[in-house]
Amino acid sequence: MKIWQKNIDVNQFVENFTVGKDRELDLQMAKFDVLGSLAHTQMLETINLLTAEELAEVQVALKNIYREIEEGNFVIEESVEDVHSQVEWLLTQRIGEAGKKIHSGRSRNDQVLVDLKLYFRSCIEEMVGNTEALFNQLIQLSEAHKSKLLPGYTHLQIAMPSSFGLWFGAYAESLADDMELMLAAWKITNKNPLGSAAGYGSSFPLNRTLTTQLLGFESLNYNVVYAQMGRGKTERILAQAMSSVAATLAKMAMDVCLFINQNFGFISFPSELTTGSSIMPHKKNPDVFELVRSRCNKIQALPNEIAMMTTNLPSGYHRDLQLLKENLFPAFISLNECLEITTFMLQHISIKDDILKDKKYDYLFSVEVVNDLALNGMPFRDAYKVVGEQIETGTFKPMYEVKHTHEGTIGNLMNEEIAAGMKQTLNQFGFEKVNQAIKNLIA
Amino acid sequence: MKIWQKNIDVNQFVENFTVGKDRELDLQMAKFDVLGSLAHTQMLETINLLTAEELAEVQVALKNIYREIEEGNFVIEESVEDVHSQVEWLLTQRIGEAGKKIHSGRSRNDQVLVDLKLYFRSCIEEMVGNTEALFNQLIQLSEAHKSKLLPGYTHLQIAMPSSFGLWFGAYAESLADDMELMLAAWKITNKNPLGSAAGYGSSFPLNRTLTTQLLGFESLNYNVVYAQMGRGKTERILAQAMSSVAATLAKMAMDVCLFINQNFGFISFPSELTTGSSIMPHKKNPDVFELVRSRCNKIQALPNEIAMMTTNLPSGYHRDLQLLKENLFPAFISLNECLEITTFMLQHISIKDDILKDKKYDYLFSVEVVNDLALNGMPFRDAYKVVGEQIETGTFKPMYEVKHTHEGTIGNLMNEEIAAGMKQTLNQFGFEKVNQAIKNLIA
Amino acid sequence: MKIWQKNIDVNQFVENFTVGKDRELDLQMAKFDVLGSLAHTQMLETINLLTAEELAEVQVALKNIYREIEEGNFVIEESVEDVHSQVEWLLTQRIGEAGKKIHSGRSRNDQVLVDLKLYFRSCIEEMVGNTEALFNQLIQLSEAHKSKLLPGYTHLQIAMPSSFGLWFGAYAESLADDMELMLAAWKITNKNPLGSAAGYGSSFPLNRTLTTQLLGFESLNYNVVYAQMGRGKTERILAQAMSSVAATLAKMAMDVCLFINQNFGFISFPSELTTGSSIMPHKKNPDVFELVRSRCNKIQALPNEIAMMTTNLPSGYHRDLQLLKENLFPAFISLNECLEITTFMLQHISIKDDILKDKKYDYLFSVEVVNDLALNGMPFRDAYKVVGEQIETGTFKPMYEVKHTHEGTIGNLMNEEIAAGMKQTLNQFGFEKVNQAIKNLIA
Amino acid sequence: MKIWQKNIDVNQFVENFTVGKDRELDLQMAKFDVLGSLAHTQMLETINLLTAEELAEVQVALKNIYREIEEGNFVIEESVEDVHSQVEWLLTQRIGEAGKKIHSGRSRNDQVLVDLKLYFRSCIEEMVGNTEALFNQLIQLSEAHKSKLLPGYTHLQIAMPSSFGLWFGAYAESLADDMELMLAAWKITNKNPLGSAAGYGSSFPLNRTLTTQLLGFESLNYNVVYAQMGRGKTERILAQAMSSVAATLAKMAMDVCLFINQNFGFISFPSELTTGSSIMPHKKNPDVFELVRSRCNKIQALPNEIAMMTTNLPSGYHRDLQLLKENLFPAFISLNECLEITTFMLQHISIKDDILKDKKYDYLFSVEVVNDLALNGMPFRDAYKVVGEQIETGTFKPMYEVKHTHEGTIGNLMNEEIAAGMKQTLNQFGFEKVNQAIKNLIA
Repeated sequence: MKIWQKNIDVNQFVENFTVGKDRELDLQMAKFDVLGSLAHTQMLETINLLTAEELAEVQVALKNIYREIEEGNFVIEESVEDVHSQVEWLLTQRIGEAGKKIHSGRSRNDQVLVDLKLYFRSCIEEMVGNTEALFNQLIQLSEAHKSKLLPGYTHLQIAMPSSFGLWFGAYAESLADDMELMLAAWKITNKNPLGSAAGYGSSFPLNRTLTTQLLGFESLNYNVVYAQMGRGKTERILAQAMSSVAATLAKMAMDVCLFINQNFGFISFPSELTTGSSIMPHKKNPDVFELVRSRCNKIQALPNEIAMMTTNLPSGYHRDLQLLKENLFPAFISLNECLEITTFMLQHISIKDDILKDKKYDYLFSVEVVNDLALNGMPFRDAYKVVGEQIETGTFKPMYEVKHTHEGTIGNLMNEEIAAGMKQTLNQFGFEKVNQAIKNLIA
Repeated sequence: MKIWQKNIDVNQFVENFTVGKDRELDLQMAKFDVLGSLAHTQMLETINLLTAEELAEVQVALKNIYREIEEGNFVIEESVEDVHSQVEWLLTQRIGEAGKKIHSGRSRNDQVLVDLKLYFRSCIEEMVGNTEALFNQLIQLSEAHKSKLLPGYTHLQIAMPSSFGLWFGAYAESLADDMELMLAAWKITNKNPLGSAAGYGSSFPLNRTLTTQLLGFESLNYNVVYAQMGRGKTERILAQAMSSVAATLAKMAMDVCLFINQNFGFISFPSELTTGSSIMPHKKNPDVFELVRSRCNKIQALPNEIAMMTTNLPSGYHRDLQLLKENLFPAFISLNECLEITTFMLQHISIKDDILKDKKYDYLFSVEVVNDLALNGMPFRDAYKVVGEQIETGTFKPMYEVKHTHEGTIGNLMNEEIAAGMKQTLNQFGFEKVNQAIKNLIA
Repeated sequence: MKIWQKNIDVNQFVENFTVGKDRELDLQMAKFDVLGSLAHTQMLETINLLTAEELAEVQVALKNIYREIEEGNFVIEESVEDVHSQVEWLLTQRIGEAGKKIHSGRSRNDQVLVDLKLYFRSCIEEMVGNTEALFNQLIQLSEAHKSKLLPGYTHLQIAMPSSFGLWFGAYAESLADDMELMLAAWKITNKNPLGSAAGYGSSFPLNRTLTTQLLGFESLNYNVVYAQMGRGKTERILAQAMSSVAATLAKMAMDVCLFINQNFGFISFPSELTTGSSIMPHKKNPDVFELVRSRCNKIQALPNEIAMMTTNLPSGYHRDLQLLKENLFPAFISLNECLEITTFMLQHISIKDDILKDKKYDYLFSVEVVNDLALNGMPFRDAYKVVGEQIETGTFKPMYEVKHTHEGTIGNLMNEEIAAGMKQTLNQFGFEKVNQAIKNLIA
Repeated sequence: MKIWQKNIDVNQFVENFTVGKDRELDLQMAKFDVLGSLAHTQMLETINLLTAEELAEVQVALKNIYREIEEGNFVIEESVEDVHSQVEWLLTQRIGEAGKKIHSGRSRNDQVLVDLKLYFRSCIEEMVGNTEALFNQLIQLSEAHKSKLLPGYTHLQIAMPSSFGLWFGAYAESLADDMELMLAAWKITNKNPLGSAAGYGSSFPLNRTLTTQLLGFESLNYNVVYAQMGRGKTERILAQAMSSVAATLAKMAMDVCLFINQNFGFISFPSELTTGSSIMPHKKNPDVFELVRSRCNKIQALPNEIAMMTTNLPSGYHRDLQLLKENLFPAFISLNECLEITTFMLQHISIKDDILKDKKYDYLFSVEVVNDLALNGMPFRDAYKVVGEQIETGTFKPMYEVKHTHEGTIGNLMNEEIAAGMKQTLNQFGFEKVNQAIKNLIA
C-alpha cells in the first residue's frame, strides 16, 4: 500500500528498488513521525481542519502508537512502503475518517523533513552527551598523569619533553572546539520545516509558528523553498560536525596505536581488552583503537559522500535525498559507539613510568639548554648555534629539569579553563527546553 | 638563507622541493607575520627578554615593514625560504642584535600558527562581508519580484506554483544558515596559539594571556599540544564553512543555468554578461554561472582534500601541513570572487512576466483544487483521488488563484524575519573588537 | 569462540565492537573461503603437512560445506566471530584432528585476502555481465531510434541537432571505455595472495605456484609484503572501476530526469514504472532514475572513502581494513541493481516524434547555414559573422536538412565499431579459464 | 580578442572571471594545439576545404609556431583569452585568409579535447618513465639489501621477521600494479575526439579516420556525443591512475618517516638531505618524505575533486569543465617531482645493520617455533597454544634462524618475475608509435 496509490500497480521490480532500505531505517524515525503528527494535528484543529472531537481522537491514537514504538511493539509491514504510511494506516484502521484528515496541509516532503530534524536533534543530544563523558574522562586522566613525561615529537622526530597531562588535555580541548561545530549544526537543525509541504507551501492557512512552539524548535525555516533545500544540507552540515569529533578520535587512536607499539612502549591495556593473532601467540593487538580510527575515518568521508549525492541538483525535492538516510543513520550509532568505547578503554589505560630516563631521549632537552644560554644574555640565534655544535661534536649535556610554567604547558595545564569553555558551549544547546516541549506533546 | 641553517648545505633539489610555493603564498601572510611579532615582542619585554630600548627599536622597525607591505614594497627574496625568515632577516639587517632576539620563546611552528589565524580572521571578515552583500541583494530581489510566479518543481516535474519572491528569498535564508557554520569556524579560529612553540611550550615564562589581548583573540588555545593540533584542523573547519556557502552558490548557479535554458526561459541576462560560441553565432551562454558552479564545487571538495592530507597523522607537527596553504589560500580568493560576481550578475537579471500563463503549467494548480475540496469537508485522501481521476480522464479544471498566506509562502515571505536572523548571527562575530586591537598594535 | 582464544575472556563490549558486522557480511564470502581451503589443503599435502588420507577427508568435508552454502544451509553462529572460524570449526567438529591442521602455513590475513579476491572476481564477472546487457540494450535503441532528432545542448543552451541514435550510442560507448578500467581492476585482483601469511610469508616450504593454478589466478602477488598491501588497494582500485560505470549511469539518469521534465518532454515511461505524489495527483515521477543517480553518486564517493580509511597507514596489516567490507560489499549489489533496472526501464522508454519541429529549436541550424556559406567559399570567420548578424536582426532562415555523414555522427553512428571495441575488451577478462579452475576444485 | 567576438563588449569583470588562469595553464598545451591543427588542416585539404597552396602555407606557419613554442618564444598576450585564439591569431597575422579557414569543421570544444588528449599522452609517458626509474631503483635496493632483516609489524605490533629485500621489493611490485591502471587511463586517453565539433559533429564531410592516423591515436572516440562526454571523464580516470601511484609513494613515505624516527631507527639519510628546526638544534627532519606524503595525499583527493565538479551535469559541454585544468595540470608536475625525488633520496638511504639483534624483537620468532612444532607433528592449533603459554610464563626461547624459502619471501624475493611483469605492462603502452606519428607531423 502506498498513500499515493492510484489505480495502476507499480511494477514489483521498481517497487523494491524504490523502497530500498526504508523499512529498516525508518524504524529509527517512528517516534519522531508521531511527534510531528501530534503537533501538526493540534495546529490543524486551530484552523478548523480538524474538529475538537477529531483532534482528541487522533491525539489519543497517536500517543498509543508512540507508546507502542517505545515498547518495541511497532513494525513496518512488508506491504507498507515506509514509516509515514504505516503510522497513517494504523491511525485510519483505528479511528477511521479522522485519520484520513491528518495529512491536510502537509506533504510527505515536509513530514519527512520534520521527522528527520526531530530525530537529528535526539542524535545530537546523544552525541554531545557521549562527547562530554569522554571529555571528562580525558580531563581526569590529564590531571592524574600530569607529572608523567613522554617525548614530544615533531616530524615524528624526538623534539621536546611533553607529558601525559598535556596529551590527554589536548584531546579534551579538541573535543571542546568540536562542540562549536556541533552547536552550529544544532542551530541549523533546530528550525521547523513543517508547513513547507512539497517545498512550495500550502493554500491552507497553516499556523507554522504554533507547530514551531509545540515541537520546541528555536525558530522556523521561514521560506518554504528553503525549508525543502534544508534536506541534504542539514545532513551535510551535521556530518561535518560529526567528522570533526571523528577526526579528534581518529587522531588519538593513531597516537594510541603508536604508543602501544613496542618501539615506543609508553602505554598498555589489560589483555582482556586487546586481541590475539591466529598464528602469532605473543600478539596483543590494539584492535579497538584501530577500529575506532577506521570508523572515524569513514565518518570523515561522510560529508563528501553527501555532497557528491546532492551537488548540482537544482532546487526542489529529488528522490536522491532518500538515500542519505543510509549514510547518516548508521554513522550516528557508529560515532556514539566510538565515543563510548574510547571512554571505556581509557578507564583501563596504564602508563609507563620514567619514560624519559632512556638515554635516547636526551636531545629532548636541547632547547632548554639553548633557552638557558639566552636567558643569560646570549642572543637566541647564537645560543642555537652553540648548542648545535655541541650536539654535532658529542659534547652536549642535557639539563633534565623541565620548568615549563606558562599557560598551557606541563606545569600549568589550565584544564579548569578548558572545562569552563566546554561548559559554556554545551550550555548553549538548550536541550532542556526541547525535551520539555516533547514531554508536553506526549503527556 | 634559512634560519635553522647550520654548516651543511642542503642539496638544491631538496631545497626547491621543500620550499615549494611558499614564497608566492606567504606574501598573503606577510602583514600578519609582522602583527604577530609586534605582539610577541611587547610580551618579551614584560618578561625581560628584551630591554625597553630594544623593544622600542624593534617596534619601529616592524611597523616600517608593515607599512612597506601595505604599500606593496615587500618581497620575499629568492635566497630566503619564507616570509618569516624574510621579516626576521630584514629586521636583523636594520637593527642588528635586537632583531636576533625576537625569536626567543617562539618556534616557527607557533609563529606560522598565529600568522595563519590572523590571516584567516581577515579572510573570514571579507567572506562574511561579501556574503552579507549578496544576502541583501537577494532579499531586495525577493521583495521586488514577489508577485512573479514560476513553476515549482519536485523530482524536476511540474509540481506547484512558486514565485521569484520565494526563489530569491530561499537563497538568502540559505546564506543566513551558512553563516552559523562560518561563525563556528570563526570562534575556533579566533583563539591564540602563540606561545605553544613547537607544540610543547617554552621554558621561558611567557605571558600568553598578554599576546591574546594584544592580538584581539577571544581566548587561547590553552593546551600547547592542542594548539599545534589546530594546524590542519582549523583549515578543515574553515573549509567546511566555506563549502556551505559554496554549496548555496552552486545550487543557485545550477538553477540559473536551467532557468536561462530555452526550454525553461524564465530569466535572462544582458548580452554583454554572457558569452558566445566559436561556431554557433546564436549562442549566449551563461558561462559566469557555470564557472561559479564549478568553482564552488571545487570548494566543496576542499574539506575532503584537507582531511585526506591530515588523516592518520599522529599528534605533533608534520611538514605535510605546509601544503594546506596551496589548497586554502586560492579558495578564499575564489569564493570571494564568486560572491561578488553573483551579486553583480543578479543586479542585471531580467525575469519573464506571466510564465504560468502557458497551458503546460496548468497541473501546478491541482493541489489547490484538492485543498479546496478538503476545506469544503471532503477528507484529504478522498479529495486527492477525485482530482487524480479528473486528471486521468482529462476533466481537470485548474483554479489559477494562488492564495498562499501562511508563514514563508508566496503571500507572506517573511524576509524581515530572515534578515533579522542574519543580522543576529553576523553580530556575534565581533569584528570591531578584533580590528581595534590590530589598530592599536600598529599605531 | 575465536581461533586465537587464549585463557582470558575478552570483554564483551570489546568483542561486540570488534566483530562489528562481520557475521552478516562474511556470508557473502563463505563459498570463497571454502574454495581457498580446498586449494590450500591440496597444496599442504604436496609438502607433507597433510597426509593423503587427511587431505581426502578434508576435501570431502569442505565440498559438503560448499554445497550447504550453495543450498542456503550455512549460518555463522552467534558464538563464532567470522566465516573463517565457522568453517574451521565445522570442519573440526566433523573430521577432528585433520581439521585443526588446515591452518598450517596460512594466517587469517592471507586467508581473508584470498577469500576477498575470489569474491571480487565473481563480483566483477557479474558487473561485467550486467554492463554488457545494458550496452547491448543501448546499441539496439541507438539503431532503432537513429532517425529521431532532439536538440543538442552546450552550456545547457540550444546548440545543434542531435539524435537519439547518438544519445543512446554515446552511453554505450561510455560503458565500453569503463570496461577498460574494470579490466585493469580485474588484472590487479586476479593475482594470488595466498601464502603471504601475516604479510611476511611462512617458514613452511609452501608451493604458492600450485595454489595459483588451482584457484585459476593469472599469477601471484609475488612479494609477501606487497600481497598484504593489496588489502585496501585492491578495494580502492575496484571501487574506482565501479565509480566509472556509476558515473556513466548517473549522467544518463540526469539526462533522463531532464528529458522527462515537461519543459523538455522528449521521453516518457509507462505509468506503472513511475511513482506518484502524496499531495499532487498529477505527478508521474522518475524515481527510478533519481535513485539510480543517487546510488551511483554514492558509488562515485566510494573510492575516496576507502582512500580516507587507508591513507597514511604504514605497511603491514591493520584492523582498519576489516571495515572496508561494509563499504564495498553493498556497493556490488547496488551497482548490479542499477545496471539491471536501467536496462529494464530502457526497454520501456517512449520517445516523442518530431521534437525539432517546434519553432524554438530553429537556431539549432545556425551552424549548418554558416558551414554552407563556408563550403561556398566564404572564410569561416566571415560566414560566422554574417549569420550572427542575421540572428541579431531577425533575418535568420534555418536549413532544416541535417546532413551529418562523417564518422560518429547522426548519419553514421558506427555502432558496429563501438560494439567491436567492447567485445575486444570483454574478451580479455578470460572468465572461462577462472570458472573452469573453480569447477575443477569443487568437482 | 575572442574568436567568437560579436559587436558587444563583454563586461571586463565577467571577462576576467571567465578567463581565469587559462592564459597561464594553456601554455602547457600550446605545442599540442599546433599538432592538432597540423593534422586537422591536412585533413581539410583532402576534403577541399583548403587548397593545396593554402595547406602548404598553413603547415609552414604552424611548424614555425611549434618551433617558437619549443624555443620558449611563445606567449599568450593579455588581450587574447587562450592558447587556441593566440595560435589562430598569429596564423592570421602571418598568412592572412588561409589562417581564417583552419577552424572549418572544428569547434573550440573538440579542439580543446584533442589538445588535452595529446597533452595527457605526453604526461602519461613522462609519469611512466619516472615510475620505471623508481621501480628499477627499488628492485636494485631490494637485491642489495636482501639479507638485512627488520621487524615485520601487524597492527603496528611486532609480528614476524621481514627484510629490506622484501620492503623495497614490495613497493616495486606495487608500482607494477599501478601501471595496470595507468595503462587503462592511457587506452581511454589514446582515442581521437577531433571531429566531434561542439559535441554533435559537423555537416562537413570530415575524415576523422585520417586525423586519427596522423595524430597517432589508437582509435577514435567514435560517437561525437561521447567524444564530448570524454571531457571530465578522461581527467577523472587519469587522476585515478595517478592516485594509485600516489598511494604507493605516500605509503612508502609514511614507512620512511616511521623507520627514521629514533624509536625505530632502521634507516637514515645524509644530513644535507634532511632539514633542521628553528629552535631545536639536534633535529634532522625527513621533510622530503613528509612532503611526498602530503603531495601524494593531495593527488589521492584529486579524482574526488574532479567527480564533485562534474557529477550531475547533463550531457553536452559545460564551462565547468574548463576548471579541471587547474586541478590536473599541477598534479602532473607534482607527481613527477615526487617520483624523481623519491628515486633520488633512495639513492642515498643508509640501512642499519643487525636490527633484529635487539632483545625486544625476540617475539618476532614465535611463529617459527610454532611452525617447528607443527612440522614435527603437533597440530597447528595445539602448537600455537603451547608457545602462547611459554610466552605467558616467560619460558619462550626464540629460534633466530630465518628459513623462509617459498615464493616471495625473504629467501626467494622473485624480483625477476616482478620486473618481467612490469616490463610486460610497460610494453603495452606503445609510446614509440605515438611519437613516430608526432615526428612525422612536424617534420
